[in-house]
Amino acid sequence: MYDIIVIGGGASGMTAALYALRASKSVLILEKENFGGQIATSPRVENFPSIKTMSGLEFSDNLFAQIDALGVAFELDTALKIQKQGDIFVVEGEYNTYEARSVIIANGVKHRKINVEGEDELIGHGVSYCATCDGAFFKDQETFVIGDANSALQYALLLANYSPKVNLITLFGKFFADDILIRRIKENDKIVVHDNWNLVELKQNNGELQGLVFENRLNKELKKEFKASNVFIAIGQIPDNERFSNLVELEKGYILTDEDMATKTEGVFACGDTRKKGMRQLVTACNDGAIAAMSAIRYIDTLDI
Amino acid sequence: MYDIIVIGGGASGMTAALYALRASKSVLILEKENFGGQIATSPRVENFPSIKTMSGLEFSDNLFAQIDALGVAFELDTALKIQKQGDIFVVEGEYNTYEARSVIIANGVKHRKINVEGEDELIGHGVSYCATCDGAFFKDQETFVIGDANSALQYALLLANYSPKVNLITLFGKFFADDILIRRIKENDKIVVHDNWNLVELKQNNGELQGLVFENRLNKELKKEFKASNVFIAIGQIPDNERFSNLVELEKGYILTDEDMATKTEGVFACGDTRKKGMRQLVTACNDGAIAAMSAIRYIDTLDI
Repeated sequence: MYDIIVIGGGASGMTAALYALRASKSVLILEKENFGGQIATSPRVENFPSIKTMSGLEFSDNLFAQIDALGVAFELDTALKIQKQGDIFVVEGEYNTYEARSVIIANGVKHRKINVEGEDELIGHGVSYCATCDGAFFKDQETFVIGDANSALQYALLLANYSPKVNLITLFGKFFADDILIRRIKENDKIVVHDNWNLVELKQNNGELQGLVFENRLNKELKKEFKASNVFIAIGQIPDNERFSNLVELEKGYILTDEDMATKTEGVFACGDTRKKGMRQLVTACNDGAIAAMSAIRYIDTLDI
Repeated sequence: MYDIIVIGGGASGMTAALYALRASKSVLILEKENFGGQIATSPRVENFPSIKTMSGLEFSDNLFAQIDALGVAFELDTALKIQKQGDIFVVEGEYNTYEARSVIIANGVKHRKINVEGEDELIGHGVSYCATCDGAFFKDQETFVIGDANSALQYALLLANYSPKVNLITLFGKFFADDILIRRIKENDKIVVHDNWNLVELKQNNGELQGLVFENRLNKELKKEFKASNVFIAIGQIPDNERFSNLVELEKGYILTDEDMATKTEGVFACGDTRKKGMRQLVTACNDGAIAAMSAIRYIDTLDI
């Protein structure tokens, strides 16, 4: 039995662990894939206060080392269900069952898919949602990024380091991104922006991506085809909280909390990208984690168990 | 004329500047003393995600360098008054007057005083509110800390590095601090804790502190006197926002905001320790700054000027 189970080992969950461990609470983090979450896929982070530039992976590794030194427990397991039994929360994982006095849901969001035929099968064979993870596989090849917000622009800039030509394809005629990134995209002559194109087909041969077919958003008669060994899709994220809806209230999949990160169930807190909030940034995810931990600590300290 | 004037160059204000500058907004920071704010007086910060240990001064210096590289403007000036003239905000400083499309108040809090006779005159002559700043002046001398929360405990731990004996004097019989700090205090045999004592007199000679007289909280007949060349007072902070009350609503001196850091006046935002909030930590101050900046940017982008 733990004081706190944190579901998700991203920036928010790990910061929650940091604060809880420093308050001498026992903490188990359940992480389904890799510690670090979304930020670990960011090639370059320059908006975290006091750190001029770092990779998201460095950030995650450092934060993990910080909580590891404080004695965090962790399991690579996916939390499938949470049930409240008296004052105890039972978290059913894919492999095991875990118990705690309180639960912090910090499971972030997952990559949004375009939902074009073949998209799932071609993951790892040309289709990727993470240029930081997979970009280097396409060194010296022409590369393709779909998206119009910060992540897509960061992917394009990263790929331009080792790709002779980067095609950045947007559905609309403008970027929804930080000015500084837009400026860098415009200044980089390896990056070509194609506006108003919608992916409609993934061409493949023997299970490997061979080409991309786009339809013009403004004139559907108009098609554009690229020979392509790769495509990096960065069109946003979606939450994944249906399985916790017995305990938390959802709005468009995001968990509703108050400013103390409390959900509708006493003892269950949510923090970071998975909750309904105005701004999803590394520093705001960390903020949420710290607050969720303090709220969980306060809750635990009122329990008799 | 600036896009944004940030009042206060602490962690929150500088993070607001970081986000605003990255969005290509012009930013002037007005700082009355030293960049860094409260955190710059913290000898050791270990609860900021991804940074295992650093001094608050390092944090501040790094953050300042980060915004300096992005072209922040700054003045050492105290904002005395803000007035709205049409869509323009005019900030009157002690030395100059400044104009901007929006204002972010991030002026933090100031040290709370005990209000015992001689306290003000003896500042810099034995009385200090910052062990990080002044502790080294009393190397190899017995030292004295008054307080019972995180700052006081951190001061005592810092002083124990170079003082043969540290007296930590609390008004109550317990600490209101992180467990990890309490453990370290208990483990450190240079630190002696004196509970339930209330400072009633500062003894001085030729304008230098010579001694401290305490009265027992539970039995006022009981006095305790120390020969002392120093005393570090860490009994909390108070906000300083009365002069902005024409534009913002205050509760116990703290500025009321919504979760977007908006105050009751359109175009005026507040962030960090100076606003009413549940948890005042470095990471939550930074969070607030980022959000205030995004809200200010959104506001400015709707203006015609």
